[in-house]
Amino acid sequence: MKSLNVGIIGFGTVGTGVWEVLKNFDNIHVKKIAVKNLNKKREIENFDTSLLTDNPFEITENSEIDVVIEVAGGTQPAFDILKSAINHGKHIVTANKELLAKRGSELFSLAKEKNVIILYEAAVAGGIPIIMPIKTILCANKITKIAAILNGTTNYILTKMDEKELSYETALKQAQELGYAETDPTGDVEGFDAAYKIAILSTISFNKKIDINKIYREGITKITSNDIKSARELGYRIKLIAMGQVLDNGKIDVRVHPMLVAKKHLLAKVKNATNSIMLTGNPVGDLVLTGAGAGAKPTASSVVGDLLVLASELETTNSPLPQAVCNHSETAEQILIGDTYNDYYISLTASNNPGAIGMIGTVFGENNINISTIMQKGINHDNTAEIVVITETAKEADVQNALKELLNSPRIKNINNLLRVMN
Amino acid sequence: MKSLNVGIIGFGTVGTGVWEVLKNFDNIHVKKIAVKNLNKKREIENFDTSLLTDNPFEITENSEIDVVIEVAGGTQPAFDILKSAINHGKHIVTANKELLAKRGSELFSLAKEKNVIILYEAAVAGGIPIIMPIKTILCANKITKIAAILNGTTNYILTKMDEKELSYETALKQAQELGYAETDPTGDVEGFDAAYKIAILSTISFNKKIDINKIYREGITKITSNDIKSARELGYRIKLIAMGQVLDNGKIDVRVHPMLVAKKHLLAKVKNATNSIMLTGNPVGDLVLTGAGAGAKPTASSVVGDLLVLASELETTNSPLPQAVCNHSETAEQILIGDTYNDYYISLTASNNPGAIGMIGTVFGENNINISTIMQKGINHDNTAEIVVITETAKEADVQNALKELLNSPRIKNINNLLRVMN
Repeated sequence: MKSLNVGIIGFGTVGTGVWEVLKNFDNIHVKKIAVKNLNKKREIENFDTSLLTDNPFEITENSEIDVVIEVAGGTQPAFDILKSAINHGKHIVTANKELLAKRGSELFSLAKEKNVIILYEAAVAGGIPIIMPIKTILCANKITKIAAILNGTTNYILTKMDEKELSYETALKQAQELGYAETDPTGDVEGFDAAYKIAILSTISFNKKIDINKIYREGITKITSNDIKSARELGYRIKLIAMGQVLDNGKIDVRVHPMLVAKKHLLAKVKNATNSIMLTGNPVGDLVLTGAGAGAKPTASSVVGDLLVLASELETTNSPLPQAVCNHSETAEQILIGDTYNDYYISLTASNNPGAIGMIGTVFGENNINISTIMQKGINHDNTAEIVVITETAKEADVQNALKELLNSPRIKNINNLLRVMN
Repeated sequence: MKSLNVGIIGFGTVGTGVWEVLKNFDNIHVKKIAVKNLNKKREIENFDTSLLTDNPFEITENSEIDVVIEVAGGTQPAFDILKSAINHGKHIVTANKELLAKRGSELFSLAKEKNVIILYEAAVAGGIPIIMPIKTILCANKITKIAAILNGTTNYILTKMDEKELSYETALKQAQELGYAETDPTGDVEGFDAAYKIAILSTISFNKKIDINKIYREGITKITSNDIKSARELGYRIKLIAMGQVLDNGKIDVRVHPMLVAKKHLLAKVKNATNSIMLTGNPVGDLVLTGAGAGAKPTASSVVGDLLVLASELETTNSPLPQAVCNHSETAEQILIGDTYNDYYISLTASNNPGAIGMIGTVFGENNINISTIMQKGINHDNTAEIVVITETAKEADVQNALKELLNSPRIKNINNLLRVMN
């Protein structure tokens, strides 16, 4: 394996983990590590602080360095740093999902021009091998669908809401105390993190560029204990699902939202902070890959894995192509959420009145929606009742219309939630 | 991607599947297909029968052919054919687990000498990407354990015995009728197939040569409906587990046998003919990869995947090394089953006598075995009773001793079964 000099951008939890793992490989030499704050106390044994710099361009412009490892995150200054690195002929290994989802195509074009490669196994699902397998050993497949749990924080919260019957707020607080969720949890709980990851996965799976701004995104903040309980009674668990699929007309449907997942489905069995990816392809059929989606060690597995593959490739060629078996120059035609077809779970509050269920059925029927289950969940003090409806497959726009009509009726007090269902 | 001429050895279900998938790739040209019987009727559309030969050496010695795809199976004549192919400078893509497990190291040595590579993703777990990921993107890991369901036939039989409460014989017959099991099912039900696969997986995971003859192997033919039922009551499902692990002393423990798997374990949730591999490594932690382990299409996914990776590699170098990141020249020191430590499920028939359970407890205690559960399962007509014991972790040799002692007692009529337990 070729000997490589590397520079690391970012030395937080992941950067430190990468550094620890790299110590096992004699052929990899860490020359410099860029940090924000040189004076921050770091509890690492046998660490030579002269490796540190607070100027990342000392790394990107350093002629001794072959590969830049970026584990800092965020779009800026990461974009400018990687652009500089590529312009100086460095190969890139990055874990930065946000940067790749938002500005990846600019970086990939530049890398192609400069004859360097960008590897990013760690950007999606931490330690689970998915990017390189899709680009190499699964390359005979036409991948038509990905359905995945790509955010450990939200899966942890939803698991605790289910198993310990906690409220969303209490489960979030526990996740924060355990370090699974950040002080500002928006990036996780509103689905941004999962959206970046499914954008990357869909791009390489469908060989088309995905516009992150066209991904429908809905987080888990509106999921209530009642939803979790009703789902359980109906044989489902609620999961934040990141999904991408190619429709029969060639259009692409990419989205992130909570779903009721049938208990027998393998994705329903994925608990706590674990990630899991279900991929459907022809000829391979269905694959499910499950493992740790975050954390210093699993992420380091993927970062160092990319680096070692690169070192192996550079042993025999100056033009490594380990990830270039597939390519994606075409732009996907992404559809709007209103044009998608789903099964639905709808929770609404109605006046406790014998006609309410009949009226709901009528409005749904007029909007081409077949109901498969309808349950009244007990009567409130104000003589209203929660009603839960499960529909057969219907068009989202029709469902939204039906809900609007229902809200116009004095019998319907509130639409509590609308969730999609995976059977 | 480089244009490649290929020859295919074997044109049964898998060979035909590979041929169908290859039609999608303009850069791959099938020049010849070797079959046993030229006159066999083949129901394939648009097939030019002049491609067929009954002499495989017409392929291996053909100077136009770059890669030989072997999907015939068995050790002979496959070994001689691949040896000839390698000697003539052909790269190899094979799905032949038996050949690789028994004579792989001879072929790999010859391939190294001739500067060609052997790819074999399809030899283990059909369409599940596992060989190439271990050799590339997971290469930063020290893999310490593999526990897997690698044989679809036995998993199908065990699933039906559990869900439909069928006897082993009835479930086997159904599997045969559905084409999941062969007329002579020995290779599957006695664990040979799983043993070949775990030998290959352990070799690349632990970077040491595994001797197939030193793998402890036990099939599923002795599993009874009573075992399945008792396991279910205790919170387990019975699965044929192929296992490999590195012990603290560096010795290697590789074996195939049925196990009681705790229902909450992901491997317990794998049903019917599906395969699943749980891999434990540092730094990645636990990964579980699940998918179709056999069948024409999933196998073709891996065969053609290997071929496309090779075509991509050969575009930039004449010395492709996609699978050479790790290597394994050292021979593993494999331990005997008697030296392994396990939790146990033991079913025995005892005379229905108040002292029987006490005596079992005493004999186990004298052999350093702690019992965690002991259950009497009802009384037979002859005034005997089935007793099921679950032990804590104990040494296999101690357990075998205890069972011998018990059999010497007139109170113990029979040891019905001994199975190991995975929690």
